[in-house]
Amino acid sequence: MAGNTFGKLFKITTWGESHGLSIGVIVDGVPAGLPLSEADVQHELDRRRPGQSILATPRRERDQVEILSGIFQGKTLGTPICMLVRNIDVDSKPYEEIKTKPRPGHADLAYWLKFGHTDYRGGGRASARETVGRVAAGAIAKKLLAAHGIEILGHTVEAAGVAVGRDVKSEKIRKNVERNPMRCADPKVADRMKQAVLQASADGNSTGGIVEVRALNVPSGLGEPVFDKLDAEIAHALMSMGSVKGVEIGSGFKAVKMLGSEMNDPLTLRGRRIMSATNNAGGILGGISTGMPIVARIAVKPTPSITKPQRTVDITRMKEVEIKLKGRFDPNICPRIVPVAEAMLALVLADHMLRSGKVNPNRFK
Amino acid sequence: MAGNTFGKLFKITTWGESHGLSIGVIVDGVPAGLPLSEADVQHELDRRRPGQSILATPRRERDQVEILSGIFQGKTLGTPICMLVRNIDVDSKPYEEIKTKPRPGHADLAYWLKFGHTDYRGGGRASARETVGRVAAGAIAKKLLAAHGIEILGHTVEAAGVAVGRDVKSEKIRKNVERNPMRCADPKVADRMKQAVLQASADGNSTGGIVEVRALNVPSGLGEPVFDKLDAEIAHALMSMGSVKGVEIGSGFKAVKMLGSEMNDPLTLRGRRIMSATNNAGGILGGISTGMPIVARIAVKPTPSITKPQRTVDITRMKEVEIKLKGRFDPNICPRIVPVAEAMLALVLADHMLRSGKVNPNRFK
Amino acid sequence: MAGNTFGKLFKITTWGESHGLSIGVIVDGVPAGLPLSEADVQHELDRRRPGQSILATPRRERDQVEILSGIFQGKTLGTPICMLVRNIDVDSKPYEEIKTKPRPGHADLAYWLKFGHTDYRGGGRASARETVGRVAAGAIAKKLLAAHGIEILGHTVEAAGVAVGRDVKSEKIRKNVERNPMRCADPKVADRMKQAVLQASADGNSTGGIVEVRALNVPSGLGEPVFDKLDAEIAHALMSMGSVKGVEIGSGFKAVKMLGSEMNDPLTLRGRRIMSATNNAGGILGGISTGMPIVARIAVKPTPSITKPQRTVDITRMKEVEIKLKGRFDPNICPRIVPVAEAMLALVLADHMLRSGKVNPNRFK
Amino acid sequence: MAGNTFGKLFKITTWGESHGLSIGVIVDGVPAGLPLSEADVQHELDRRRPGQSILATPRRERDQVEILSGIFQGKTLGTPICMLVRNIDVDSKPYEEIKTKPRPGHADLAYWLKFGHTDYRGGGRASARETVGRVAAGAIAKKLLAAHGIEILGHTVEAAGVAVGRDVKSEKIRKNVERNPMRCADPKVADRMKQAVLQASADGNSTGGIVEVRALNVPSGLGEPVFDKLDAEIAHALMSMGSVKGVEIGSGFKAVKMLGSEMNDPLTLRGRRIMSATNNAGGILGGISTGMPIVARIAVKPTPSITKPQRTVDITRMKEVEIKLKGRFDPNICPRIVPVAEAMLALVLADHMLRSGKVNPNRFK
Repeated sequence: MAGNTFGKLFKITTWGESHGLSIGVIVDGVPAGLPLSEADVQHELDRRRPGQSILATPRRERDQVEILSGIFQGKTLGTPICMLVRNIDVDSKPYEEIKTKPRPGHADLAYWLKFGHTDYRGGGRASARETVGRVAAGAIAKKLLAAHGIEILGHTVEAAGVAVGRDVKSEKIRKNVERNPMRCADPKVADRMKQAVLQASADGNSTGGIVEVRALNVPSGLGEPVFDKLDAEIAHALMSMGSVKGVEIGSGFKAVKMLGSEMNDPLTLRGRRIMSATNNAGGILGGISTGMPIVARIAVKPTPSITKPQRTVDITRMKEVEIKLKGRFDPNICPRIVPVAEAMLALVLADHMLRSGKVNPNRFK
Repeated sequence: MAGNTFGKLFKITTWGESHGLSIGVIVDGVPAGLPLSEADVQHELDRRRPGQSILATPRRERDQVEILSGIFQGKTLGTPICMLVRNIDVDSKPYEEIKTKPRPGHADLAYWLKFGHTDYRGGGRASARETVGRVAAGAIAKKLLAAHGIEILGHTVEAAGVAVGRDVKSEKIRKNVERNPMRCADPKVADRMKQAVLQASADGNSTGGIVEVRALNVPSGLGEPVFDKLDAEIAHALMSMGSVKGVEIGSGFKAVKMLGSEMNDPLTLRGRRIMSATNNAGGILGGISTGMPIVARIAVKPTPSITKPQRTVDITRMKEVEIKLKGRFDPNICPRIVPVAEAMLALVLADHMLRSGKVNPNRFK
Repeated sequence: MAGNTFGKLFKITTWGESHGLSIGVIVDGVPAGLPLSEADVQHELDRRRPGQSILATPRRERDQVEILSGIFQGKTLGTPICMLVRNIDVDSKPYEEIKTKPRPGHADLAYWLKFGHTDYRGGGRASARETVGRVAAGAIAKKLLAAHGIEILGHTVEAAGVAVGRDVKSEKIRKNVERNPMRCADPKVADRMKQAVLQASADGNSTGGIVEVRALNVPSGLGEPVFDKLDAEIAHALMSMGSVKGVEIGSGFKAVKMLGSEMNDPLTLRGRRIMSATNNAGGILGGISTGMPIVARIAVKPTPSITKPQRTVDITRMKEVEIKLKGRFDPNICPRIVPVAEAMLALVLADHMLRSGKVNPNRFK
Repeated sequence: MAGNTFGKLFKITTWGESHGLSIGVIVDGVPAGLPLSEADVQHELDRRRPGQSILATPRRERDQVEILSGIFQGKTLGTPICMLVRNIDVDSKPYEEIKTKPRPGHADLAYWLKFGHTDYRGGGRASARETVGRVAAGAIAKKLLAAHGIEILGHTVEAAGVAVGRDVKSEKIRKNVERNPMRCADPKVADRMKQAVLQASADGNSTGGIVEVRALNVPSGLGEPVFDKLDAEIAHALMSMGSVKGVEIGSGFKAVKMLGSEMNDPLTLRGRRIMSATNNAGGILGGISTGMPIVARIAVKPTPSITKPQRTVDITRMKEVEIKLKGRFDPNICPRIVPVAEAMLALVLADHMLRSGKVNPNRFK
């Protein structure tokens, strides 16, 4: 199987296991001449890095990125950009004990059934650590989008049963999301989320939530019906993240209970531009961007790693057994999923900006 | 843009506008030697055909399929199978009036912004009629899957605010879904759905719902992390259908409020086979099938065509106007979306059966 | 296997067997707004049609194209264009006799080994008739290229051992190539080619040759190193044609005996434009177009169908046997390969014009 | 542009500039469980390494490979294998002088026209150094093929006008090719080649040649008509290498002058296996492998780097100038192209072994 490449013109390929030597990504298709430094990428990696708060795994990784190719004199060359992060704080001991006992809710069993031979240490390739490459690549995508006026925002809208209201102003996201460990746009709700997360965690349990990502100032005309629709590729991108069990665009599952007259966004004129009065469509109709903000949400399941005892099967002895996990986990993954979801949305949009001819694929101007 | 191809080894390419001469699909990658007749395909096309009940558009299309290539002596050749359906009952008159007035909730504006030149008659390429090709191709995928013991089931689980319970037995789907116009597994709920749909329709309005698709007896090991995960490609496939605003796998958005200890499916032995006691994962972990049933649900928005007056913009005069639609619509699209969603799931699985080496790509045995 | 699609943004998918109902192509990725009629396509199909002279198979096909989708009011819609040609003059009788006796030099045995079940009538999918779809699609590519000033020329430079000189002026190709049955730019050489072809044919034998294609006025910057180089994709395209056993660019195999000082094209200024004084590179360096004419040549093997007796194996009886073919053949395929080679070059260039952002993928301007 | 990925199921992505920090490749799609060590890869890298003889550039690179991912306990994991080689002996000084003066026969001008911003040091991405990634990936492909009994052989058949006979026995290639600096199967011809190469080199000039690659024991049935034919993909692969101006399969350009009765390979029985008495087809008919040896040859142009004075244009001053190169060059690249051509053939075949279901894509058995 060769499923580690994403995108058509803005194309990324990631590699790396959680406890291997390193982890990284090649980004191919970035136009030449885009100013880019390691600091641009490091900034985003620092946002997803573990060990940032009591809400994240205590694994200590500096996640220092090295750019190995594709840059010359501070600018992209139009050639592949290889970025590498070393794995440093690797503790494989807790995994020895469970190497024949697949953890419920994890990919352990599925990898074993598929590949026979697996790297059980820290989840191997199925670890959340795999997202380092996504975030590093996303940083370049974001930079390219920003140069065309497009902004990507992400925030936690629900965690451990505590939710913000549905229509959060972008201004509040920009202002608050990096100021609290939940990456919630409302500081008070963030506090309640945190309490709920810690309470479950104290009980050896974990919680899930909903993360929303938005793209502002996206031009109309992105998306390629009937199969490579913009929403279809966003769904693909977001569902490819670990722990995501659902994706919705605009009103999403709420649309199910609406009437056509409520759901249809009336068209209006704002100056010479055709806009919609509401945005139930989430900025996409017929699989094509309309110029309205693109809004997507993902259902994040509770972190599968919990310290409560769980039933599983020893695959060498083929016997039912009980396990109690001892590794290092995030009690709630939403805050760390925010930059990853932003990265995935940015990657889809950068690709479509190239594919629809809005960005010159050879040279950045 | 060239977005009309789906799949990697089992690959389909569709074409056709709602009011053009014909509509169809090429299916490339079907192994040689699979018995296949027009009747196999016609059966599925008849399920999605319009005009089947008062719940569907009265457009009268026989949707008779012609297979133009790829079959010899009743068996596939391993070469592309081209299937064509003529458009017969074409009434473009109602669309003349609104050709410069994009219908809210439809793709009209998005196509116009992207392409400049569009076929406004019946929605053109963005019409639900486009799904003829998907269903015809899906019929072949289903046949290939059935030969390997895999069964695809679909049903309406919610419509116009009326829902069945969450865990419908597959037996009830097989038995009831073709016996009521809602394609609901519970005949009594189907009646209530129908009443609710007709009530909104009588008021010139439309309704949405939720459709579920399942795949039974899927082998473990399908799916290609980290980007071409099985769930990511299912999400892509289902979100590429018109009117779909959300996709979820297994517990989906319900997982958001669960604890890890509730969500994680405990592993057990059934004979020599490792199964999970519950199926919150929906048959997929780490992007790979586990051998448990695959379960996906989609959020279907209310049909955007309604007869109530709506606000829009005349794009030639650049002036806000009101429109009242007169065409032929489905008041609720869920029943007709069932076979399309089944087709999309079947296409993804047939492709992955080939990609994972479970089916010989050259010859059917 | 699913190998019937070519191109990334300008993407074609062909289908059809020689003696099936019809043959055709879908062209996906043509920008909206390009004026296009059936006559545009028919013109090219008429050039490759059988039965044009005593040098071609007497099979009588009108090869009338029907455009089934993607066009509205005389212009492309940006949606897939499906084009279909019916097979009419089908005579499968001669093939009954040899259906278990693969013809040497043909694909019969290879298809049987791969697929088990094959359509032996007229070569099935491996027939030269398959190129109908390529030529129809190429007609659209040519039209798009012409609108950007790019011209495609093809001609026979060698046949049955008779060759024109290496550096034929483009003016002579334009003037003479449709005036003689060999499609040779030099009428006198054409006569000698014809005599040589007929002489071998009278003896029940066949001959090969070399066809050259050129693209004039191609902008610099097309091609995507290091694997999707322009020359690599041209080689792929041309080698995918039946009967082609070699491809060369610029000086090609002649370069093998040259010194670096002879091969390197010196750079000079013509006005403000950098050109090369010679064109040994054939318009491509490092896999990227330089702005000089693109020149490629293909080695066409002698038509495998000959009436001389040949040794083969009866695959059901597994016994060596002798066969004598009776079908309808081209004694030399070069003249009919000219429009196909032109089409393939046009398809690669149209795709790269889109991929390099020189053509807007959404709208033709 | 994103052209740095090759293959569909056995997929490689390369990166790196000649004078950048490092160069490397990701190989995605290798089945799990294949024994693999750095030594396996190093062996092939050592064959292409510079500085091996007076016939190669004196640049001193150890080309030590590090495998960063995809291996665990000495076996592949089924996950991407990232391999990296540091650039050590980088001397960029000679390139400063010519950075605005594109070298004739090199990619300098083409890159500048395409990208605007280029890395002029050592040819940047267009350097032959880019093939490190190809050869490293090819080593894995060869290992997978060898496990299925397939052998890849390469040798120089012509250099500087000196050629071996056309039908070299495989035994002679195996025995002699690593014993002389020309990688020629005939030691006496190798000596004459070497003299001719050195003679031109002494005069500040360079020479070209022909390299042949073969694959023995390839199963029938590989290749996907009509566009992804095996020969078409081999042509793509080989033409994507720097300095290659032509590709031929089997009799290649020699077929042009043959009669059908000479070219067609008669079919015979060897035991229960159908073989051909001759192999003009080069093991491929109709784009599908027949089971006979696959034979391809490439035309290698004379190395573009020569020390004779050459005419070019200063692109900042837009003035014609003369340059005299001072870097480190291979006077004839054929010997070092042999392992690269072998690698490319191995990559195509490994991909097709997976695509045709001959190798399980999940697990090596």
